Amino acid sequence: MHCDRLWTHVHIATCPTDAAGLGIIHDGAIAAKDGRIVWCGTRAAMGDITAAETIDCGGRWMTPGLIDCHTHLIFAGDRSDEFARRLAGESYADIARGGGGIVASMRATRAADPAALYDAASHRLAAWEAEGVTTIEIKSGYGLDVDTERAVLRTARALGATGRMRVAATYLGAHAMPPDRARAEYLDLVCDHMIPLIAREDLADAVDGFCETIAFTPAEIERVFTAATTHGLAVKLHADQLTEGGGAALAARYGAISADHLEYASESGIAAMAARGTVAVVLPGAYYVLREPTAPPVAAMRRAGCAIAVGTDCNPGTSPIMSLRLSAHMACVLFGLTFDEAWRGITINAARALGMASETGSIVEGKSCDLAIWSVDSLAEVLAWIGPAPLYRRILKGNDL
Amino acid sequence: MHCDRLWTHVHIATCPTDAAGLGIIHDGAIAAKDGRIVWCGTRAAMGDITAAETIDCGGRWMTPGLIDCHTHLIFAGDRSDEFARRLAGESYADIARGGGGIVASMRATRAADPAALYDAASHRLAAWEAEGVTTIEIKSGYGLDVDTERAVLRTARALGATGRMRVAATYLGAHAMPPDRARAEYLDLVCDHMIPLIAREDLADAVDGFCETIAFTPAEIERVFTAATTHGLAVKLHADQLTEGGGAALAARYGAISADHLEYASESGIAAMAARGTVAVVLPGAYYVLREPTAPPVAAMRRAGCAIAVGTDCNPGTSPIMSLRLSAHMACVLFGLTFDEAWRGITINAARALGMASETGSIVEGKSCDLAIWSVDSLAEVLAWIGPAPLYRRILKGNDL
Ligand SMILES: [Zn+2]
Ligand SMILES: [Zn+2]
Repeated sequence: MHCDRLWTHVHIATCPTDAAGLGIIHDGAIAAKDGRIVWCGTRAAMGDITAAETIDCGGRWMTPGLIDCHTHLIFAGDRSDEFARRLAGESYADIARGGGGIVASMRATRAADPAALYDAASHRLAAWEAEGVTTIEIKSGYGLDVDTERAVLRTARALGATGRMRVAATYLGAHAMPPDRARAEYLDLVCDHMIPLIAREDLADAVDGFCETIAFTPAEIERVFTAATTHGLAVKLHADQLTEGGGAALAARYGAISADHLEYASESGIAAMAARGTVAVVLPGAYYVLREPTAPPVAAMRRAGCAIAVGTDCNPGTSPIMSLRLSAHMACVLFGLTFDEAWRGITINAARALGMASETGSIVEGKSCDLAIWSVDSLAEVLAWIGPAPLYRRILKGNDL
Repeated sequence: MHCDRLWTHVHIATCPTDAAGLGIIHDGAIAAKDGRIVWCGTRAAMGDITAAETIDCGGRWMTPGLIDCHTHLIFAGDRSDEFARRLAGESYADIARGGGGIVASMRATRAADPAALYDAASHRLAAWEAEGVTTIEIKSGYGLDVDTERAVLRTARALGATGRMRVAATYLGAHAMPPDRARAEYLDLVCDHMIPLIAREDLADAVDGFCETIAFTPAEIERVFTAATTHGLAVKLHADQLTEGGGAALAARYGAISADHLEYASESGIAAMAARGTVAVVLPGAYYVLREPTAPPVAAMRRAGCAIAVGTDCNPGTSPIMSLRLSAHMACVLFGLTFDEAWRGITINAARALGMASETGSIVEGKSCDLAIWSVDSLAEVLAWIGPAPLYRRILKGNDL
C-alpha cells in the first residue's frame, strides 16, 4: 500500500469507538491518505506500506486530536467581577436574577462589532490549539436576538473555515430569556423563525437548550426540540445542573446526542440516556467555580453503561476555563473518573456527543487523520500535570498545524 | 528627577508592604533607576520626572512580579502513575510507605546527570515566566545524600544566575528518610555536616523540614532548626499537612519565616505564627490533588492577623502543578481567599515567606523594580480566568525579560 504520510516509532492510544479502554499500541505506526487514516497497528505488523513522507516520532505518545464538546467561546464583555461576588457568598442564581450572568454577556455581545467577536474568539482558540485540540464545539446563546445569534454562528463557521480546527456550531437560543421579550414571544421566535432559518442557512449542527428553574421549563424545551427535529437538526441539553428537573430523561426521550452537566440527574434519567445512546457530558469547570455541593452521578453512569465525555464549558461567567486538559484533570480529581475514562471523554466520547464519532475521535481506519503527538515518556503525564501541555504536534486531516 | 525607565498610562496594584489591600493607583506611573523603584504614584502627581526611556502601557494593569514561595522544581523521574493509583483509592501515605512518593523521586534524582536536572528544571521554569513570575523558591530534598543535595542546590543557584528569575534556594534535607540510612545517622548528617557545608558554600537561603507522622518528628525538626539557626540560616516548615502535629507552633517558636500547608494547624498554632511574624503559606495544589478533606483554617489566620501566602508546591507527586495563577484561583475557590488576599499571597506575602519583603513583592520606592504588566481591562481578569496568562511584559530589576 502507498500512502501520503506515515508516522512510525510511536506509542498509540487509539481510543477505539466500540471497545472500552484506550486500545494502546506500543511501538506502532499509522498511515494516512487523502487526510484519512488508512492503516494503524504495530510497527512489526506494518508490512510493505510505502509513503510519500515518513515521520519518526522518536518513541513519543500519540492520541486522537482532542475534542472539546461544550464551549461558549464567542462572547464579549468581562464578568470577572461575578467571580469575586461568588467568593463573597452570592449564588449563581442570585447573580443571574440581578441582571448579571448570561444577560450581562448578552448585552456586551449584542453591542460588539462582529469583527471584534471574531478576533476575541480567534485569540482564545490558541489556548485549545496549544493543548492538541482538533475539534471544538461552539454554542451561540449570548445574542438572544436574530441578528446577534446569526452573527455568532457565522463567526463559529468562519473559525472552522480557517482550517485551524474542526468547529461544531450549536444554536443555543434557549440559553436565557432575553429581558426585552415576552416569554411566549421569544419561544415563538426561537422555534418558528430562528430554527428554520438556521437549518436553511446551515448555521449550526445542533440545537441546545438550558433546562433549569432559572432558564427554560421542560415543556418549553420540548417545543424547541420538536422544532429542531422537524428541521433535521440534532439536539442536546444543559440538564439537571443546579436542580433535578428531569432533564436527563427529557434529553433521552428526544434522542439528544448529549445531555450536559447532570449534577442532579436521576438514576432513571441516566439509564434512559444510556438506553438511547445520549452521551453524558460532565463539566467540572463550572462545578468547581460555582462550588456546587453535588457531583454528577458518575457511578450511575458507569452502571448504566452511559458514555461519559468531558468539556470545558468555557464561558465568561460560570466556567472561565480555557484548558480541556485541566477539565479532564478535574473530572478525575473531583468526579472520580479514571484516566482511561478521562481520555475517552476528551476523544471518542466527545466526538459522540457531537454526532461526529464516525468522522473523528479515534485512531482507526476510515476516520479523519486528526492526531495529537505528546513529548512524554508515559501517557499518564499528559493528564497528570497541570500547566503547559507537552504537545509535540497537532494534526488535522493528515496535515501538521 | 531623572530616571532610567518610566512606565506611564498604567493602573497599578502596588501590594503595599505594611498596609492591607492592593493599594490601587488608577492612571499611574512608576520610575526606576539602577534597577530600583524610585517613584510611584498617579500620573497627575508625577511632576518633572524625566527618563532615558518612557514606556506607554496603554491603560494596562501592573502588579509586582509574581512570587512562588514554595516549589520542588528540580527533580528527575515520572510519578504520574501515583496519580492514577490515588484515583483508584490509595492514600499518599500508603504510596509513600510502599516506596513511592518522595523516595521514588529520590532514586531518579540521584541517578540523573546534573546537566539533565538543570535542563529539565530550566524547561519547567518557562511556565513560571509565562505567568509573570519574577521570584521563585526552589527546595532540594530529592537527593537526601551529600552529593545530590549539593548538586540540586547548585542547580537552583545556576538557574538564578541566568537572570531569568530571582531564585531563593532552600535546603530540605529533612524531607524524607533516605531508606539507605539509619535515622539517627541521617539526622547527624543533615545537622552536623550538610547544614554547616551549605552555610559555608552559600548554597541555600533557608532550611526547611517536613514535620509529619510519615516524615520527621517535632523533636527531630527542632534539632534541624537549631543547627540552621546556629549557622545563620532562616528556617521554614512543612507543617500540619496531613495531621495536627504542633507544626505551626513549632515553626513560630523558632521564628520560621513561613509554615506551609497547615491544613490541620490549631488555632493556637496560627496565633503563635501571627505573633512571631511567621507567614502561613497555603498550597491548594496538593490539597486538591490529594483530595484532602480539611482545608487550612483561613478564618483563624484572618482573625489572628497572620499573613497568608500562596504557592504551587510544584512537585512530581502530590502537586504536579506548574501554574501559580491556578494555585491562587484554587486558594480562592477551595479555601475561600478573596481576590485581594490571593494577590497579596503571590506578591508581598510570598516575598515575606522568603524573607525578601524588603527587596521585592511590592511596587514601592526602594524595592527592586520587579513587575508584571497584564493585557486586561480589569485586574480581576488575571485571576478569574484559567488558561494562558494575559501577560504583556515581565520586568526584573528594571529590565524587560
Ligand atoms: Zn454550557
Ligand atoms: Zn512542599
